[in-house]
Amino acid sequence: MGENGDTEIIEHHVDEEMEKKRILRSHGSSFMESVTPSERDGHSSTQSSHRLLAYSDALISIIATVMILPVAHTKVQDNEELKESLQVLLTTKIAVYLMTFLIVTVAWAAHIRLFQVIERIDDCLALLNLACMMLITFLPYTFSLMATFPENILGILLFCACVMVLGFIQAVIVVYGFSRPFLLNDQIQVSENQVFYKHHILKVIMRVPIMCFFASIFSFIFFQMSYVILAIVIFLPYISQSLKWCRSKAIGQVEETPDSMMFYTYHPNEPLSKERVEAFSDGVFAIVATLLILDICEDNVPDPVMVQKQYGGSLVAALQNYGPEYLAYFGSFATVALLWFVHHSLFLHVTRTTRFMGLLNTFSLAFVGGLPLAYQLTHEFPRNSRNELEAIQISCVIIFFAGVFQLAIWVAALFSERETLHPYVRYGGREHAFMLAKLALYPCVALGTFFLTCILSKFSASIFHLMEITVPFAFLLLRLLVRGGLTLLRLIFCPDGPETRSALEEEEEEARMPFNTIIT
Amino acid sequence: MGENGDTEIIEHHVDEEMEKKRILRSHGSSFMESVTPSERDGHSSTQSSHRLLAYSDALISIIATVMILPVAHTKVQDNEELKESLQVLLTTKIAVYLMTFLIVTVAWAAHIRLFQVIERIDDCLALLNLACMMLITFLPYTFSLMATFPENILGILLFCACVMVLGFIQAVIVVYGFSRPFLLNDQIQVSENQVFYKHHILKVIMRVPIMCFFASIFSFIFFQMSYVILAIVIFLPYISQSLKWCRSKAIGQVEETPDSMMFYTYHPNEPLSKERVEAFSDGVFAIVATLLILDICEDNVPDPVMVQKQYGGSLVAALQNYGPEYLAYFGSFATVALLWFVHHSLFLHVTRTTRFMGLLNTFSLAFVGGLPLAYQLTHEFPRNSRNELEAIQISCVIIFFAGVFQLAIWVAALFSERETLHPYVRYGGREHAFMLAKLALYPCVALGTFFLTCILSKFSASIFHLMEITVPFAFLLLRLLVRGGLTLLRLIFCPDGPETRSALEEEEEEARMPFNTIIT
Repeated sequence: MGENGDTEIIEHHVDEEMEKKRILRSHGSSFMESVTPSERDGHSSTQSSHRLLAYSDALISIIATVMILPVAHTKVQDNEELKESLQVLLTTKIAVYLMTFLIVTVAWAAHIRLFQVIERIDDCLALLNLACMMLITFLPYTFSLMATFPENILGILLFCACVMVLGFIQAVIVVYGFSRPFLLNDQIQVSENQVFYKHHILKVIMRVPIMCFFASIFSFIFFQMSYVILAIVIFLPYISQSLKWCRSKAIGQVEETPDSMMFYTYHPNEPLSKERVEAFSDGVFAIVATLLILDICEDNVPDPVMVQKQYGGSLVAALQNYGPEYLAYFGSFATVALLWFVHHSLFLHVTRTTRFMGLLNTFSLAFVGGLPLAYQLTHEFPRNSRNELEAIQISCVIIFFAGVFQLAIWVAALFSERETLHPYVRYGGREHAFMLAKLALYPCVALGTFFLTCILSKFSASIFHLMEITVPFAFLLLRLLVRGGLTLLRLIFCPDGPETRSALEEEEEEARMPFNTIIT
Repeated sequence: MGENGDTEIIEHHVDEEMEKKRILRSHGSSFMESVTPSERDGHSSTQSSHRLLAYSDALISIIATVMILPVAHTKVQDNEELKESLQVLLTTKIAVYLMTFLIVTVAWAAHIRLFQVIERIDDCLALLNLACMMLITFLPYTFSLMATFPENILGILLFCACVMVLGFIQAVIVVYGFSRPFLLNDQIQVSENQVFYKHHILKVIMRVPIMCFFASIFSFIFFQMSYVILAIVIFLPYISQSLKWCRSKAIGQVEETPDSMMFYTYHPNEPLSKERVEAFSDGVFAIVATLLILDICEDNVPDPVMVQKQYGGSLVAALQNYGPEYLAYFGSFATVALLWFVHHSLFLHVTRTTRFMGLLNTFSLAFVGGLPLAYQLTHEFPRNSRNELEAIQISCVIIFFAGVFQLAIWVAALFSERETLHPYVRYGGREHAFMLAKLALYPCVALGTFFLTCILSKFSASIFHLMEITVPFAFLLLRLLVRGGLTLLRLIFCPDGPETRSALEEEEEEARMPFNTIIT
């Protein structure tokens, strides 16, 4: 495995450099290629789309997580059982939050797909994209209208109108892009099937608004039908994929032009821009981490008059009321930041993301979005009450699922590790065990805390706080722990340990070489 | 100018490629250099810091803009005059918002400076940085405590404690970075003055926490003194800069090692990572653009019971109440998005940002942060009231200043255009006039609207809405308008227009060449 791994590293780095050169070329030429004959009269400054996409990712990630706010601001009364009020929450607001998250990420995935085809932009495309963004940010509101008034067709109509206009603008962007081929992806730019691509992409894009059009018409006749159509729209890619899969199993592989398979397929292995998955995740993590400080800044500065009256002017006494909320803030910030840290470590070693990995990432992020709410709940109830225990257990479950889906991304990547992972974290790689430990730490700790609180329900709050404090230190010492554990395992199972160790050192020796050559 | 410009383009592109190669090298080697002898026992995976910094920028930008929320949520009563309530707002909340924005951007600038020295990270640095972020996100709250209870020392103590811990963590990061030199900036890595650098940087970093320590001690004795010290801390760089300038004017240029001048000086020309200025601005624009939809999603979904009772089940009637708020949302989103668009266009042509440009950018962003509030005010008052007129005029003033500071960035860049600007937008460049038009559009329109509403105060709302609708189209057609205007000017002032035109076409011909060679 050792030598094999080495050649892979080199291969990988060559790939990386090729990639960089491609980016470099496309960037370096962005000003050069700005003028072509067809451009003489119109908009002529072609630009790299990098920052536009980063801004779009920031906007979409804020919008995706924003529907957690109505959930977080539902005050749970002290006298009612958490279970009951949670059932109310669960049935409407949490469902709305998860569905909105899903819908917005579907819109985001469509946006990625579009701008993987159109790689350079000009002013006109930038403005069209901003119009798209405005419509996408309005989607959650129309959706929550639909959820609050399921029998009123206004929500459906607004939602469908938004989606139809979005589809129309996307189609305009595609037509505009293909009329100025230098804006397109290099691969399509040199391809002979440009017209075929254009029609294929337009066909895929227009499918959604057309179905929404039918949904809005049905809403006048028989509105339940509209919801069925809308559900089909969202799950269409998965349905068509599984149908295709069934067909290929039944009558054998259908022939397809391999050329057309690159973009706008719904294959789970369709590439998804890694940069944008990272940017979107960063946005979600950032907004979630600050969600509680937003509340604290707005609500937890006591009124001077009130302090004078109730606490005799003692600010410390007044602020002690808010103590649990500060604790909730620091706890949720630390957990979100560490989950971000795990995500960051994982994607550092991911070389290519697929649609399936993107889907798992979305699930993980949806759970992360619920974290601040869960942490807030843990501190809203009296000590040792049944509600407190349940709130702590819910927090554990959310952390567990957020962590497990991150682990699932890695496992999914391992199945096609040659394309998607850096050699270091592949099976048998130098960092494999360490990465596993990093990814497994939070799910294990959450699971452990969950069962401990089941058994020692009296000390649930203390156990939970202890977990909050120890986990950051566990991350700091993780490498040492993993090394110790591995050495122990090696000593137990294979007594010829020293040999493997020296091979490892040789590898390190080799790895150090390029660094020295760079320095000198 | 023509030939001169061409050589500059080539020169610039060579620079750019050098830069890219440097980045490429440092990126490509991030895995290679991961193991050095001193690392055998500790954390060994060195990483590019790119994503960590992007995430930090997202967090800091959210926190910087968040203090606008308490301002936005101060309900203005219909019966009181806007002026009075505005005075209340102005004296406390807006001042708090602006001061917080300033303080957070000072912390952000310190963060940039630190990570311009430490260019690569490992797990330990990533975790330390996350701890820094947690403290920075808590700063606005301590500051608003200080502002609400100016005579209570608790706010001062909390603020000083945060800053001191922040300074301590920064110092740890510096010491850690210098103990593992491969984490440092390439320039410092190969420098012989590493120890000098380390002491210089530590000295600069520790200045702030030490002054905060004195401030916290003074708070027990004579708390007014603490505020003076804290003010000195914030304006220290500017004070020391102007002192240095005065001294150099008085007794001539003081000799300094030019080597030490690169980092941790407070010279207005000190480089500021362009990437991070963009990321921070994107974050602020994104959160500001969505600020109103957050409110709408949370508050403007009517209660089904209320709709049944008050409006006889008619959702449309119930939603009509919220009409002005939707209008405010679309208006503010469009304005923020277009200001982002101008910012984007400008920074596309900026090759290097300086501290002074960063400062102007901060001022522009602080005004952008106030926009949603202003837009919300415009729709909260009855039609044709005095309040409505004033709210509209305040919106115009805010847009004007946000735009003018963007223009000022470009003007500041023009003073040292060879280092900071792409040849196209320098004086005499091909895109110079177009860039000027883009940057001047919003300030001009805002100023025009302001004076129009002064004269035709009866139609102020209509004028304002007309402005909102026409500006996006003006941006779409701007290139045509500028071209038309320039041709007109040329026809009027220099009758030998055709010659210059053909020279321009030749230039375009040349510019087209590289594109063709890339394609074939």
